[in-house]
Amino acid sequence: MPRHNPARRRALTDAAVTLLASDGVHGLTHRSAERAAGLPAGTASNYFRDREELLVGAAERIVELHLADMERADTAALRQAPDGSAPDVVALVASSLEAAASAQRDRYLAVFELTLESRRRPALAAALARLAGGASAFTAGQHADLGSDVPPRVAALLVTLYGGALFALVTAPGGPGTPTPHDLARAIVAGARSVA
Amino acid sequence: MPRHNPARRRALTDAAVTLLASDGVHGLTHRSAERAAGLPAGTASNYFRDREELLVGAAERIVELHLADMERADTAALRQAPDGSAPDVVALVASSLEAAASAQRDRYLAVFELTLESRRRPALAAALARLAGGASAFTAGQHADLGSDVPPRVAALLVTLYGGALFALVTAPGGPGTPTPHDLARAIVAGARSVA
Repeated sequence: MPRHNPARRRALTDAAVTLLASDGVHGLTHRSAERAAGLPAGTASNYFRDREELLVGAAERIVELHLADMERADTAALRQAPDGSAPDVVALVASSLEAAASAQRDRYLAVFELTLESRRRPALAAALARLAGGASAFTAGQHADLGSDVPPRVAALLVTLYGGALFALVTAPGGPGTPTPHDLARAIVAGARSVA
Repeated sequence: MPRHNPARRRALTDAAVTLLASDGVHGLTHRSAERAAGLPAGTASNYFRDREELLVGAAERIVELHLADMERADTAALRQAPDGSAPDVVALVASSLEAAASAQRDRYLAVFELTLESRRRPALAAALARLAGGASAFTAGQHADLGSDVPPRVAALLVTLYGGALFALVTAPGGPGTPTPHDLARAIVAGARSVA
């Protein structure tokens, strides 16, 4: 068996993401990730030298999954507008928030756990900043492809407000007072545009 | 010395808030709070039976400080409009975001640590929900006093977007790409109003 097996690495990082969401940063160790991935004790240290590398590995896996989802959303949105009409940005943001707060809830809870932990770990902070930069570049490219010319100031607001709405959706109890993903999407898009 | 000394309780909860911000939920224990507050070992258990009570105590202290600040902001805003003109909501939100992200950064980092931890602790979740309900009622009363008739749906959006912007501001490295509190305030207020 090769020392670095991509499927094992993926199994470990997927387990790490699930553990971050369920047990918080403190619940993620080499041992708990191995156990959750059904791998023998000692496997994880072949892939991640220390706990910080394991945290960075989880962050990288989340960005990989996030970008894959965005590619898919992009394609779907372009397919839905075969007549060349402008894509419905509010609907795109709303469906993205909706999915992030339900099927992908664990992934985004893990992001927020990592974000708070990164204040105490400069290496993790650097990794998250690198990954966020990549995601922003991707989003900018996606907007350019869709023919929407979004000023950088508005794009930064969109990304910030989106992340904030996501924090509320994944952590909120979701009672009657919680705004819907659609209302949030409308407010985010209108709000960011108002500053253009 | 009485078993319950309000100044000691306050010293312990203030220390708890600072520890939550600097070391995360895991860094807060009875012992670390006593040490940070300069109190003898064993003091904290007179005030908080277990770790969950200590976490709830920190949450209660944050809400107490938050409401006191809002009272002050309210009074100041009313003073600034002695001619009866409508208060500048964007300026109010911007200065509140600004203060929360600088002088009161620890307090809001602690809130986000507690929010994530509350998913694993039903008693903490219940306490946070109770506290959030109180804060919302206060905000609604404040709006009514200011003569602004904000529909509940818009108020919920304002609170959610504000919390999200705060998360971004207190956790972001604050590089050139980070939106300013003023831009965020403009976008939040315009966005929430657009859904009315």
